[in-house]
Amino acid sequence: MSARTLDGQALAARIQQELIPQVEAFKHTHGRPPALGILLVGDDPASDVYVRNKVRSGREAGMRVDMLRMPATATLRDTLTAVEAWNVDDAIDGILVQSPLPAAMGHDAEQQVIDTIAPAKDVDGFGAFSVGMLVQNRPTLVACTPSGVIELLDREGIPIAGQHAVVIGRSDIVGKPMAILLLHRDATVTICHSRTRNLAEEARRADIVVAAVGRPGLVRRDFVKPGATVIDVGINRVDDPDLAASLFPAGHPRLETFRKKGAFLVGDVHPEVEAVAGALTPVPGGVGPLTIAMLMKNTLKAAQSRVAVPVG
Amino acid sequence: MSARTLDGQALAARIQQELIPQVEAFKHTHGRPPALGILLVGDDPASDVYVRNKVRSGREAGMRVDMLRMPATATLRDTLTAVEAWNVDDAIDGILVQSPLPAAMGHDAEQQVIDTIAPAKDVDGFGAFSVGMLVQNRPTLVACTPSGVIELLDREGIPIAGQHAVVIGRSDIVGKPMAILLLHRDATVTICHSRTRNLAEEARRADIVVAAVGRPGLVRRDFVKPGATVIDVGINRVDDPDLAASLFPAGHPRLETFRKKGAFLVGDVHPEVEAVAGALTPVPGGVGPLTIAMLMKNTLKAAQSRVAVPVG
Repeated sequence: MSARTLDGQALAARIQQELIPQVEAFKHTHGRPPALGILLVGDDPASDVYVRNKVRSGREAGMRVDMLRMPATATLRDTLTAVEAWNVDDAIDGILVQSPLPAAMGHDAEQQVIDTIAPAKDVDGFGAFSVGMLVQNRPTLVACTPSGVIELLDREGIPIAGQHAVVIGRSDIVGKPMAILLLHRDATVTICHSRTRNLAEEARRADIVVAAVGRPGLVRRDFVKPGATVIDVGINRVDDPDLAASLFPAGHPRLETFRKKGAFLVGDVHPEVEAVAGALTPVPGGVGPLTIAMLMKNTLKAAQSRVAVPVG
Repeated sequence: MSARTLDGQALAARIQQELIPQVEAFKHTHGRPPALGILLVGDDPASDVYVRNKVRSGREAGMRVDMLRMPATATLRDTLTAVEAWNVDDAIDGILVQSPLPAAMGHDAEQQVIDTIAPAKDVDGFGAFSVGMLVQNRPTLVACTPSGVIELLDREGIPIAGQHAVVIGRSDIVGKPMAILLLHRDATVTICHSRTRNLAEEARRADIVVAAVGRPGLVRRDFVKPGATVIDVGINRVDDPDLAASLFPAGHPRLETFRKKGAFLVGDVHPEVEAVAGALTPVPGGVGPLTIAMLMKNTLKAAQSRVAVPVG
């Protein structure tokens, strides 16, 4: 038996295609495109790649994407000022500040910046108000990775209601909102983390496992009930040859890639899980691309809400 | 074996006593007492009792409690205006609008009123912003019933970290914040509800069970692992003699009460659980009195935060 692959890349492309006519209709009605402002501070190379993908996705969907670059020497005050300008700019619907901010800005700079984004424009769904609205099951902008997972389950026809879901990881951006979304879809939800005893046993009770901890290959075969759906949110860069060799059998093509490039990306789910899961997201090409597609959906949704109720 | 009784009434009295010198110190420093505004609209008899208890508790602790009564004919606008006046009244630290509001105000009146309370004065912790701050594990005012449960577990020396907790019920005011608080205290948390399959089996895995669904006697003996801690948040009025007879053995003094009064209050936990649980909260006299004590703690906390950072 081999798990069905849940192709996040393909679904992300489909969502992007579906957005095009909706963005077109918005433009036609309102005389302007939905617009996203992305602020990138500093020169983290990974952030550069992420931001480029977001800009491209937005523009391909027909949206306006304003990209503001600030040098690594920018102050927190500079950053807040930029966000505040977008808050009051009526032509901007969504605001995203790429993480991480330069360390020199201080440990709670990111929190302060997120707190400053107007809730109506909080397309990442990271603000306290957005999170509270989500928990209360009220209309709001929801964090893109967990909402992408729900979209994937729905489109793949995987039932959620009445199922037992186990979320491994309790981060603010994935684990906690993921648990809440699954709960609101009538799953019985268990949240596990580093202090959980018998993690394998807990996970093995699940019909749906979501792994979001950032530990390569953590979820082993014995974590998974035969036939369960396994969603791998982790994207971990592995450059240790021993760790690489522990993840794939000798002769596997990914080990060849590793030898050539000296590193590769793997998820939190060990590849051996493929033999026992019913359905599984690959890494890369699973949840990652969906996150960006959901960001574009959120931007359109923010635009539609703002023209319906002109606040923020 | 018989479960240890977790005496919420006694703990509530102790918390009240502890507040007195702190309230006194606040008055001494700031020249005014911490102050709570309670708005009661209409003439629901149960609300009357609840509000009276809250007023008495606050005053016994040395606080100022302003009680504003509005007739059942008051409009939503009247109610919002009253809240707005307290929002900008610098001498008021906490605002509580007693639930339920008159049905004639409309189904989302309560939500609108809660949304209007300034977050810094949201002593019930029901506003979206307060909830989001709680989920993000940031300093905020937390809903009184679930925070009372944590206080009770702590004071009784019942460990939470690394334990498996099962919360039955997913309400905004108890179930969901309870799960989040237990998670932040490093419990592995499962949230169950009406759509959960094998509820008894899920609950039986718990070291700590919190029942908050409002169904008399739902949690039976087979829901509880021997020695587990069982927290009963339900307060249900039973006036059906058959239901009463199914809850207590013939000759039990509570059945005598029932015969005299025609009704009694029971929790979500069946009395037979006492024989198997390690520790158990009674109903009445368990979580109920704690909720009011925590409201007073929240009012003091709101007052202290407001003088530290004068906002809202």
